[in-house]
Formats: sequence, C-alpha cells, structure tokens
Amino acid sequence: MKFLQFSLSGESPRTGWLYQDRIGVVEGSIFGEYRRMEAVFPLDRVRLMAPLHPGKIIAVGRNYVEHARERGAEVPEVPLIFLKPPSSVVGPGDPILLPPQSQRVDHEAELAVVIGKRGRWIAPEQAMDFVFGYTCANDVTARDLQQKDGQWTRAKGFDTFCPLGPWIETELDPFDVLIQCKVNGEVRQVGSTKEMVFSIPQLIAYISSVMTLEPGDIILTGTPAGISPLKAGDLVEIDIEGIGTLSNPVKEP
Amino acid sequence: MKFLQFSLSGESPRTGWLYQDRIGVVEGSIFGEYRRMEAVFPLDRVRLMAPLHPGKIIAVGRNYVEHARERGAEVPEVPLIFLKPPSSVVGPGDPILLPPQSQRVDHEAELAVVIGKRGRWIAPEQAMDFVFGYTCANDVTARDLQQKDGQWTRAKGFDTFCPLGPWIETELDPFDVLIQCKVNGEVRQVGSTKEMVFSIPQLIAYISSVMTLEPGDIILTGTPAGISPLKAGDLVEIDIEGIGTLSNPVKEP
Repeated sequence: MKFLQFSLSGESPRTGWLYQDRIGVVEGSIFGEYRRMEAVFPLDRVRLMAPLHPGKIIAVGRNYVEHARERGAEVPEVPLIFLKPPSSVVGPGDPILLPPQSQRVDHEAELAVVIGKRGRWIAPEQAMDFVFGYTCANDVTARDLQQKDGQWTRAKGFDTFCPLGPWIETELDPFDVLIQCKVNGEVRQVGSTKEMVFSIPQLIAYISSVMTLEPGDIILTGTPAGISPLKAGDLVEIDIEGIGTLSNPVKEP
Repeated sequence: MKFLQFSLSGESPRTGWLYQDRIGVVEGSIFGEYRRMEAVFPLDRVRLMAPLHPGKIIAVGRNYVEHARERGAEVPEVPLIFLKPPSSVVGPGDPILLPPQSQRVDHEAELAVVIGKRGRWIAPEQAMDFVFGYTCANDVTARDLQQKDGQWTRAKGFDTFCPLGPWIETELDPFDVLIQCKVNGEVRQVGSTKEMVFSIPQLIAYISSVMTLEPGDIILTGTPAGISPLKAGDLVEIDIEGIGTLSNPVKEP
C-alpha cells in the first residue's frame, strides 16, 4: 500500500492512499485504526506533501563503503548516528533553499525507514516487525559547514534540508533495491541497499538500544557514493526502486 | 506565571498553573488560547511531569568559558549546536537510567529556554519576544561515548537523559540567575547565566538562522563548570534562581 499526504485545490492536507493513478482519503491514523475510502482523486490533480511529519529523524553516516571512501573517512565500527530536526522536512516539489551561510550544498539520496510501532532494545530478528514502510529521502548537507562545525546539526539541519516522499510504500522488500539520484536528468548517485554496512535490522537494533523508537519516527539509512554540489536552478530527483521518485527544485531563498 | 503538567492520583496528565502551593487546571494550550481555573490541588498531593513535550531540543555546547576549559576545549567562534531527541525527556522525580553502554555518565545543569512563537531569521533585538518562559534542564551526557563517537547524538540521546522541570516560569529575568547542581546534597556546579559566551538573544538569532523555531521547542543554553560522574543511588538536584528545583534519582535500568 502507498500512503501519502495530499491537498486538493489548496485545502488543508489530508491522508490518502494511492490506487493506480487515483487517491482515496484515509480516515483515522495510518499508525493506528484507519479506514480507506474510495480512490476518486486523480494523482495529477492534487498537490503531494511530505508523507508524514516525523517525530524524530535519526540519520546514519557513512553506511556505504564507497561513500565513506569518497569522503576520505573510515567505515565506522558501530553505526554513526545523528539527528535532523523535524523542521527540515519538505515534500515532493518543494524547493531546497540554499542557505547564505554555505558555499557547498550536496544531495544525499537515501532510503528512509518509517517506524510503525513503539520499541526499545529491539532485537535484530524482531526489527522488521517495527517497520511501517519506506520512502525516499534527501539528506541535504552543507558540506563546508559539516567540516567546519564538528557537530553536523547545522550542516544537516537547515529548513528544507530533508525532502521526503512521494509516499510511504508499505510492501517493499528493502534488502536489494536500487537508489538513484539524478540532477537535471544526469545520474549522480547509484547504489543498492544491499551495499549498506549496517543493515536495516542492525540499525533498528542499535538505535533502539539508545532511544525509544515511536510510530512516525524515521531512520535515514545512509547514502551511496556520488554526492555532488547543487546550485540554484537544479532539479534533484531521487528514485528508489519499488517506491517512486522524489523531485525537488533547488533555489536561492 | 508557573505552568506545569501534573497528574492527580494516577489520572492522565493535565496542564496546570501554580499559585503559591496550589495547582489549578489550565484549559486550552499554553502556547495559544487558554483559561486558568481555580487553584485547588495541593502541590504536594500531585505528581509533576515534564512541563512540556518539546518538538525539538536544541542544545548548545561549551557556552561557559570555565566548562570549555575543564573539557580541554576552546570556546567556539559561533554557537556549537546539537540536538537531543524528544524521547530523552523525563520529568521531576523520574529516574535517570545509567545505560550499560557507558562507564561514565555526567550531569550538566542548564537553563532551558521555552520558545513561544514561530520564527526564522530572528534578530537578536527581537529574540526575547519569541521566549515563552524558562525551566531547569539536565543535559545528561555519557562522557566516554561523547569522546568515542565524534557525533554527540548517542552520548546525549539516551532515554531519560533530558530531565526537565519542575515547571515553566514565564516571568524570569534570565540574564543573571544562579544555576546550581547538587549531587546527594553536595554542590558540584555553580554559575550565573551572565557568564554565557553567547547570550540567549544571540543563541535564538543563530539557531533561527538555520531552522524555524516553533512554540514548544526548547533551547538548552549550556552548562557551567563542575560536571561530575553519577552513580546508581545518587540524587541530582538542579536549582535555578527564580525557577525552582528539579530533582532526579539515578538508577541502574
């Protein structure tokens, strides 16, 4: 199933589900009780928003060997986790705004895992029971500030630095799907989730040994090699096999 | 005014206000429209919880010269910001649980600024208009993991690592108040907020140049010198002049 957030002719956002190229309203909470109504709205007539408002966004650094190498860094012995603020989230089609504080802003295409069930100290063997679904994410990063600050909060925390979407796919088998990032139609990043250093179950186990995971939290699972700078006027497309494409234009604020 | 969250004989938490030693219910949202009811419940007969569930927790590292020095670090040129997850919040009296992954867990007494109004690119001169009030915070830190990980997310992100309370004081003049931390009655940290490297208006201006601040976000403004390790059985008390005392026992999980 594909769950999304949409707005019809400027109305306030509603939860929906996608059937072929039509959207139906979902009543209730996708993380609890809900009811799917008939799919009547054509997908090309609505505006899609970020498919959820995450409670927390836990991201993982250097989780693909080739990407760690291109950054001149070692693959970490345990997952390298950091947080992005919920205020950084935008949806499909929303602009990524280049902050005046940075001279180099990169795309980072990533598979985002959406948590569906509250848990702490989750064993790797049970971890997949806590997953609700998957979406595409762009862990946009001000590379110069990342190097300068030490802590990555500013570099990865600007408003618009976490595009998510276009929807949450609940039926994906996530262990060998292609992640691709194109800028203006040209392929910049390609990788398969099978190349992750720490697998999704390992990441869930590790993160939940630190903090309680809650429904609506998301985990950004790291980016494959091929990061490159963005400039105003670019269009970034992140495509994940079995999910879909997340497109965002890049603008000066 | 003092706003708090309380529970009466195990009922679900309610928002309240404190008048002398009695609590009245607050109907509505403290960040929007609300109505104060008569203060009828004796403070010593209720259980206090964390006075809010922050949307995001932005913390500031090395914001007191003496503390930077005791950590062998320089005072940063710009505020050193990082995030703690909302899942780390606990309230007055709740235990701080020592994680098995760490051999050294320290207290860090801090003044927490509660944001009351949405804002981005806030000028220092306007910053105080965005403040709703203040509470006491303990930025509990697994010192060994902080050194080991590079990013501070794990070290500062464990469940129970952000005690808040006992209430939000809206009438504080925050520019020269004493912050004190006692462990088992013995003073470990003392400092005045006038010793901050970056003042509250400067912090609000800086953080909001990166991310939108929202009502219910909090800023932990850094800790004075005197950090020290905690062990199971300890009682940590953080007292801030003009606010009150936040007490938490330390336990093995």
